[in-house]
Amino acid sequence: MVVILKNNPNQKQLDNLIQWLKSLDIDIHISQGRNTTILGLIGDTSVVDIDLISALDIVEAVRRIQEPYKNANRKFHPEDTVIDVNGAKIGDGSFQIMAGPCSVESKEQICSVAESVKRSGAGLLRGGAFKPRTSPYAFQGMRAEGIELLLEAKALTGLPIVTEIMDLSQLPLFEEVDVIQVGARNMQNFELLKELGRTSKPILLKRGLANTLQELLMSAEYIMAGGNGQVILCERGIRTFETATRNTLDISAVPLLKTMTHLPIIVDPSHATGLSKLVKPMAMAAAAVGADGILIEVHNDPMHALCDGQQSLTPEAFDDLVQSISHILPYAYKEQTK
Amino acid sequence: MVVILKNNPNQKQLDNLIQWLKSLDIDIHISQGRNTTILGLIGDTSVVDIDLISALDIVEAVRRIQEPYKNANRKFHPEDTVIDVNGAKIGDGSFQIMAGPCSVESKEQICSVAESVKRSGAGLLRGGAFKPRTSPYAFQGMRAEGIELLLEAKALTGLPIVTEIMDLSQLPLFEEVDVIQVGARNMQNFELLKELGRTSKPILLKRGLANTLQELLMSAEYIMAGGNGQVILCERGIRTFETATRNTLDISAVPLLKTMTHLPIIVDPSHATGLSKLVKPMAMAAAAVGADGILIEVHNDPMHALCDGQQSLTPEAFDDLVQSISHILPYAYKEQTK
Amino acid sequence: MVVILKNNPNQKQLDNLIQWLKSLDIDIHISQGRNTTILGLIGDTSVVDIDLISALDIVEAVRRIQEPYKNANRKFHPEDTVIDVNGAKIGDGSFQIMAGPCSVESKEQICSVAESVKRSGAGLLRGGAFKPRTSPYAFQGMRAEGIELLLEAKALTGLPIVTEIMDLSQLPLFEEVDVIQVGARNMQNFELLKELGRTSKPILLKRGLANTLQELLMSAEYIMAGGNGQVILCERGIRTFETATRNTLDISAVPLLKTMTHLPIIVDPSHATGLSKLVKPMAMAAAAVGADGILIEVHNDPMHALCDGQQSLTPEAFDDLVQSISHILPYAYKEQTK
Amino acid sequence: MVVILKNNPNQKQLDNLIQWLKSLDIDIHISQGRNTTILGLIGDTSVVDIDLISALDIVEAVRRIQEPYKNANRKFHPEDTVIDVNGAKIGDGSFQIMAGPCSVESKEQICSVAESVKRSGAGLLRGGAFKPRTSPYAFQGMRAEGIELLLEAKALTGLPIVTEIMDLSQLPLFEEVDVIQVGARNMQNFELLKELGRTSKPILLKRGLANTLQELLMSAEYIMAGGNGQVILCERGIRTFETATRNTLDISAVPLLKTMTHLPIIVDPSHATGLSKLVKPMAMAAAAVGADGILIEVHNDPMHALCDGQQSLTPEAFDDLVQSISHILPYAYKEQTK
Repeated sequence: MVVILKNNPNQKQLDNLIQWLKSLDIDIHISQGRNTTILGLIGDTSVVDIDLISALDIVEAVRRIQEPYKNANRKFHPEDTVIDVNGAKIGDGSFQIMAGPCSVESKEQICSVAESVKRSGAGLLRGGAFKPRTSPYAFQGMRAEGIELLLEAKALTGLPIVTEIMDLSQLPLFEEVDVIQVGARNMQNFELLKELGRTSKPILLKRGLANTLQELLMSAEYIMAGGNGQVILCERGIRTFETATRNTLDISAVPLLKTMTHLPIIVDPSHATGLSKLVKPMAMAAAAVGADGILIEVHNDPMHALCDGQQSLTPEAFDDLVQSISHILPYAYKEQTK
Repeated sequence: MVVILKNNPNQKQLDNLIQWLKSLDIDIHISQGRNTTILGLIGDTSVVDIDLISALDIVEAVRRIQEPYKNANRKFHPEDTVIDVNGAKIGDGSFQIMAGPCSVESKEQICSVAESVKRSGAGLLRGGAFKPRTSPYAFQGMRAEGIELLLEAKALTGLPIVTEIMDLSQLPLFEEVDVIQVGARNMQNFELLKELGRTSKPILLKRGLANTLQELLMSAEYIMAGGNGQVILCERGIRTFETATRNTLDISAVPLLKTMTHLPIIVDPSHATGLSKLVKPMAMAAAAVGADGILIEVHNDPMHALCDGQQSLTPEAFDDLVQSISHILPYAYKEQTK
Repeated sequence: MVVILKNNPNQKQLDNLIQWLKSLDIDIHISQGRNTTILGLIGDTSVVDIDLISALDIVEAVRRIQEPYKNANRKFHPEDTVIDVNGAKIGDGSFQIMAGPCSVESKEQICSVAESVKRSGAGLLRGGAFKPRTSPYAFQGMRAEGIELLLEAKALTGLPIVTEIMDLSQLPLFEEVDVIQVGARNMQNFELLKELGRTSKPILLKRGLANTLQELLMSAEYIMAGGNGQVILCERGIRTFETATRNTLDISAVPLLKTMTHLPIIVDPSHATGLSKLVKPMAMAAAAVGADGILIEVHNDPMHALCDGQQSLTPEAFDDLVQSISHILPYAYKEQTK
Repeated sequence: MVVILKNNPNQKQLDNLIQWLKSLDIDIHISQGRNTTILGLIGDTSVVDIDLISALDIVEAVRRIQEPYKNANRKFHPEDTVIDVNGAKIGDGSFQIMAGPCSVESKEQICSVAESVKRSGAGLLRGGAFKPRTSPYAFQGMRAEGIELLLEAKALTGLPIVTEIMDLSQLPLFEEVDVIQVGARNMQNFELLKELGRTSKPILLKRGLANTLQELLMSAEYIMAGGNGQVILCERGIRTFETATRNTLDISAVPLLKTMTHLPIIVDPSHATGLSKLVKPMAMAAAAVGADGILIEVHNDPMHALCDGQQSLTPEAFDDLVQSISHILPYAYKEQTK
């Protein structure tokens, strides 16, 4: 961390600042220039509150040099984290496909989709039981019953299941769930993240609509700081001025995150674009840049998809998508991270 | 709602669509043009899922014409909502100032700030007991103990208190709290909103960093649909590409929301800019455009403000701010909404 | 175009509006609902000023249904446009690689890079003679002399050249240039676009940092309306709140533009990310989603790259990038546009 | 400027870097930490290319500490710049109102509006002769004839005129124009800025839709570096995800720019919001935060405003706006800049 002082700082305040920093076990190097004095802070600066220092009268600006995340940082953990979900591995160099309907609607629907996506090559089944919807008047999901139906589909097909939690009060219902998903709107629901850090389940953490990659890693850090290192990051599009797509898929996030962290990274092309015709090319882009997998919406009947129908594929289109990806995977980008 | 069909739509699919819409009690007017057929949907279209229709093969695009919020909509409730917090009124044409420290730190601190802001003219005391912090290593607030200290400050000064809830499991601790704040990161925590809709307390709902005004009103709608009509909206800055300020305060949201909704609207200039030097002019702008109040961070000792110090004012600066606003208020903008 | 009227519109004003629209040869269908009246405008609505109608007292909102671009619209020109630059074809299903240094610096430099990128498989040579720089104190390019050096490199290697124009006064210097590039900051320099529409040269039009895909097509329309149909679109990243990359590459723009327009689309991964380590994976993503080519910065000596060094590759890295792409191209996404 | 080195940097490359920096007359202070080495660069770092250094193998990151603008920097020019336009002063503490129609349409129109806005209190007349329009099929302005009509209105009323230049080839037509406006889309048209730097006319420089305040000042720096110090900055809204307004007016830019620069700052509420009902409250906000003036669109007949009608006021509404502002001005925010 670098602290740039204002011209002619009050010496007493400066002494106070230096003394306080030393009490936090921070070493300080002073660079005295013609117009500017710079303090170089050396040590574990993740404990230093950047806003607090910025607020001081004698300080012009503060610049962080080291990343504020530790457990998620590849610098301190150079080896890739591999997550094993009942045998389905994520982050080991393979490409895991998680597929299923936006919302669980009935036993027939979820079982039929599960069998179909398994046949096409999906390694995990996804489906929404609790649905975050912008409108209180829209379908809110089958909730507890939806999780039970997912478990029936799991029993039938053997596919591990991924489903979203919306509040920590729902956690007891997730005992048999294999991967707990944290949605984009909950990426900074810190109480939920803390609680998930105390579980031993893999967490699929989606990037918020307006969150930076560093913030995504800080949210992963919340989970990891609680003792749960099994975090799967998910890029699902960010909010920009462009209205032709629902969000803008930041595909460069994948190779960039690979340099920042050792955690696996998957891509959700369905929510990112909001247009089913873009799901296939964006899934192919995800494969090309070296993602560890994708999350795809598949439904078995468009007129009955109760929500987010626009971004869903039919089983046939999904099968075609998996084929298209399989050609690209052998030639996908691999970051030289070591 | 207007549905634009693709050229030469499949007649059977079109019949299905029309039949389904009629089952929702929607009337349909068909405009047949040279190249385009348009369906005008008349009735209560808030129950129609725009994504579902967009996903149909025969549909080119869907455009919403009526707002999807009802309880919050000024069209259906032309009179301003006035919220009475133990005598402090919000939305009645007065200008309510809510002030206090970012975080509650000690009895001495919160009581001292409370007395000071009351003297300067604040009508409510704000202070953080539960603190949403980007880093798990940063101070997370005094939590339950913080609320107790706020209640002591309330007993001392008579000021009603405003403080943030971060998870619905904390709700029992808020029994004596006067106004429950929902932070920007929780604006779309729908489970929390639903639960708050079942309480009878005023809710201060902050706009999310990447949320549109319509989404803000949809979140208010979640609370109101549960039976709680006491929602105070708060503009606190949105995330943009500009890095000179922490967020960009969208001051035009105030007069625009006044035309969209009957709910009161306040402004938080402290969080919006993240720079204490901008708090005063932005508070003055809020007063000028007709906001119903402001939320201001005031601390009594900069070296001890444990978080967000950069955006806080001293009691002296706050007093000066209140003076400056008082000159502007008599000439503030009043929307002709009726 | 759909015009939504306010409740109980003034009949005289409505008659005036209808009469005026009819004078523009627009047919009008009226849908009378319970609370809302909708006018459906049928005909060539590209001549109708949407802002003008929106401003009328009786109008609640206006929604455009048809795209305001005609020459660039795939609906009216379903066949792909193929641009032939001295034998190098763009848009014919091949993948054209345009490569070269950010800035032309010397004869030795540009000729050396030209020979090197040709060897690796580039079909066109790019290099900056006029450089748009944020700071007036930064190197502004070799200007006229830079173009002469590019022409020498072209004579040596046979590679057609692509270089940026910054002002229409420079046009006479571009007589021997094969493809004229319009930079992101000039995408809405309408006087320049008009003038380029009167030339017969291929134009490489970069998307502006804050411009929608529709605006990009409207700028192409400016060129095409003047009679020059040879426009190559280029996605090069948009400005978002994310600061880890210089811009956010909107890779979904490629398949989406393919459905909107018949013009070829290339990708510039160098400027989009501003990080040389991301150029290769993003180029692979561009190949995977079906782009018609890429624009890549290559330099021969990092210490002497006078600008934008951070986003440039060495000739060796470029050769590796071309190899990596060649594996993906046979399996790239192809839009079913017909 | 601070250069953060990677761990264990190559010593030879480090020596080269240090030698090169010294050749630019930069002093270097080295802070050697446990894991990190930091170079503090002291001197005139505006000549150092931040991208070039960032690209070096041994460099982790570069952080600028001093602003890259000099002529526009308040630190080096603490006194406010006052611009005198034929007696109408901008930046002297008064509040200048520039008003007029979006487009000049006829002698009757411009003269009538000019007399009307003068009566209401405008100090300058604005009107568009060259119009930047997104669509090539929209009205492009009366061009040279429009400037002549503006000059007739000036002769009639004595009001100095402000009008937009779109290309430097038009400069000869601006000989009698009092203030030359550079539109948002041309804020980084560097060739135009350079040329305007060689004139002696006041330049009204609008902020680009996606440009930071620092970039705005760098564009002002282009004009000032050429010898023309008469630059008026104009905040006119930035592009964000919000679609309820055309742009988001960044009103905090006004007091923040006042701390960064000595140049006058005005606000254009008409273009910023795109909604005529928001023009008055946003003008009041501009007055409250201490802007040096506003730019307002006024038309005399809505049905004939050929463009941007939605954001224009009638003369009566404008008169009311000026009255409302006059009450606020005595109490406006004044930055303590010295």
